[in-house]
Amino acid sequence: MSLPTDPAANLAELIRCPSVTPAEGNALSVLQGMLKALDGTVERPVFSEDGTPDIENLYARLSGNGPHLMFAGHTDVVPPGDASAWTHPPFAAAIANGEMYGRGAVDMKGGIACFVAALARYVEAHGKPKGSVSFLITGDEEGPAINGTVKLLEWAAARGETWDAAIVGEPTNPEKLGDMIKIGRRGSLTGRLTVHGRQGHVAYPHLADNPVRGLLPMLETLLEPAFDAGTEMFQPTNLEITTIDVGNPATNVIPSEATATFNVRFNDGWTAEALQAEIHNRLDVAAEASRLRPGRDTPVAFDIDWLGRPSPVFLTRDDRLVETLGASVEAVVGQRPQLSTSGGTSDARFIKDYCPVVEFGLVGQTMHMVDERVALADLETLTLIYLRFLEDWFD
Amino acid sequence: MSLPTDPAANLAELIRCPSVTPAEGNALSVLQGMLKALDGTVERPVFSEDGTPDIENLYARLSGNGPHLMFAGHTDVVPPGDASAWTHPPFAAAIANGEMYGRGAVDMKGGIACFVAALARYVEAHGKPKGSVSFLITGDEEGPAINGTVKLLEWAAARGETWDAAIVGEPTNPEKLGDMIKIGRRGSLTGRLTVHGRQGHVAYPHLADNPVRGLLPMLETLLEPAFDAGTEMFQPTNLEITTIDVGNPATNVIPSEATATFNVRFNDGWTAEALQAEIHNRLDVAAEASRLRPGRDTPVAFDIDWLGRPSPVFLTRDDRLVETLGASVEAVVGQRPQLSTSGGTSDARFIKDYCPVVEFGLVGQTMHMVDERVALADLETLTLIYLRFLEDWFD
Ligand SMILES: [Zn+2]
Ligand SMILES: [Zn+2]
Repeated sequence: MSLPTDPAANLAELIRCPSVTPAEGNALSVLQGMLKALDGTVERPVFSEDGTPDIENLYARLSGNGPHLMFAGHTDVVPPGDASAWTHPPFAAAIANGEMYGRGAVDMKGGIACFVAALARYVEAHGKPKGSVSFLITGDEEGPAINGTVKLLEWAAARGETWDAAIVGEPTNPEKLGDMIKIGRRGSLTGRLTVHGRQGHVAYPHLADNPVRGLLPMLETLLEPAFDAGTEMFQPTNLEITTIDVGNPATNVIPSEATATFNVRFNDGWTAEALQAEIHNRLDVAAEASRLRPGRDTPVAFDIDWLGRPSPVFLTRDDRLVETLGASVEAVVGQRPQLSTSGGTSDARFIKDYCPVVEFGLVGQTMHMVDERVALADLETLTLIYLRFLEDWFD
Repeated sequence: MSLPTDPAANLAELIRCPSVTPAEGNALSVLQGMLKALDGTVERPVFSEDGTPDIENLYARLSGNGPHLMFAGHTDVVPPGDASAWTHPPFAAAIANGEMYGRGAVDMKGGIACFVAALARYVEAHGKPKGSVSFLITGDEEGPAINGTVKLLEWAAARGETWDAAIVGEPTNPEKLGDMIKIGRRGSLTGRLTVHGRQGHVAYPHLADNPVRGLLPMLETLLEPAFDAGTEMFQPTNLEITTIDVGNPATNVIPSEATATFNVRFNDGWTAEALQAEIHNRLDVAAEASRLRPGRDTPVAFDIDWLGRPSPVFLTRDDRLVETLGASVEAVVGQRPQLSTSGGTSDARFIKDYCPVVEFGLVGQTMHMVDERVALADLETLTLIYLRFLEDWFD
């Protein structure tokens, strides 16, 4: 059996599996075949939860004597949308002008294909690694993420698995390969603000209490002043109001309630709890100020609900992991990558509770878009970077 | 055939017709019977329009030599809601403690019952009136009002009908019978503001443009400063934001668009056109000011749609009509009624294009509520007031 050393061949096989969340689409089985060829032990735990689809996952390990490196990621992909809008079909892995087209090309079947190829080349050159390499791959990253990475980590840890470092193969480079390693993320906090009023007819406003009048200054106070100006390794904390919904179809009726939802991405100057307290305080001040409005003497009544669990901020401080990966990138592309904490949440926020974690993969520009695609040259470059990292980190 | 001189008997008959818009429910037929007994000519035009239910209407006339008085109103009623929440069934006309219960008791089968009784007593005492009395009664006041008063007025005018004055029998008294005659109404203008932005991920706000940030100051500028402080006969112009709808279910997505709807009740210091221009101007200034926001240099993009046709403000200046009705009230209840232009729009705004119009009816406190009801004493009092008015106005 030949080893899966060619990232483009690996990726073509994976793209041809239509693994739109929650479908496995044969993608994990294809990956399992590659890892078996590398002599790995492979397990396929399935996780279930009421109200969500069962999800297949994969945990594989090539065991050696020494430190344990985890490669983490997902084989599921977002839907292709209107397939006819694609230049090449989304599950065909067509190659044109040096690029391979397909859903998951960069997010992130491509990252998996390259890591497998790098490991295959390592094994071909050196035999088994000096330590252990494991693959922690879920089929539920793009979906509700309930039966995926979190449960897979718990499942593996319960079996005694421990890791010394992890690389998540998500597309981290904004423009070209080697631009950016992600070494942390801002936290995320979502809240829903409800302002209570009293319904009535627009012609008799003194008999009603329009909650929109109360809502506006409360939303303004969430937007201004800024929460901070950023910290050494993090962007400024930012709050976005993602929706306001009153849902009153009657243009002659003052509504009884108005709600708005907001999400905050916060840096290491805050804990989720401190931020919740700050937001509460701003809203209390605004509600109190509403007493001064003509015709009122009581503060506006409001509730705040925190939706889901906040994601904490994290920063990876493992110098050897970050330094080795940065040096591998420089050795291959001739340029030091930026160390970044920008962008959205990823499964790294769960992995960081088990071991130091960094994220590095392909160029993200076409992810989740029509004509998602990857340059074949990038596949080779990323494979070389991962290979160099394996050689240096296990050294 | 005995004449319908008893307002309580008339009302009981009408309440027992379940004429929830758009159902006729036999209410117009019952009314037709009463008016036939008074020797009136009765017609029952039905109006239709695509997408709306056909609606039955009634136009009746007792012709005489002299001025022509219109009594206008509606026999349709709003739904009773949860009938089991009523102390007495909503279509039974039960009497308890001197009050008659039923949907429409005050809005406005009661007003019709009293006017019919007053006219019957007038005829009993004096024979035909010195002028003409007509009834312009729709079954579509509480609904979309498309196949109702507006078409009925056009229909009658096209047949050569002209009127010298009109009374609308809607419940005008806030607390007790004789409190208030309505002699005009503020205008009404409804607009929908849409702010355009650019969708994106909350983690990358610099790549998106959150329309909610643009919307908030635009809404503030609609609320402040006040449009005016009121005029001699009118309350201040007032704007209510009736809904804000973004409808974005994804808490990690910045939406692309945000809309808000508002209604303005405006006084005789404004025309609808002048108010639209003022609102446009305020929004333009706010949009221009948005350039100063960090990260922007173009004004926020917005549209404004005016919904439906504005209702113009009106004030009835027919001294004889207003004076005669005021004196009739005073003669019966011993107190001069307030002349008011407050409250919501009514069909008077359509009638005012044909002749001077005033509104006077029962006490509105229970209208549209569970246990809508009217004091039997009020039915008798209102009948006496209408009778006195008929005697004096035709004199
Ligand atoms: Zn991904
Ligand atoms: Zn009414």
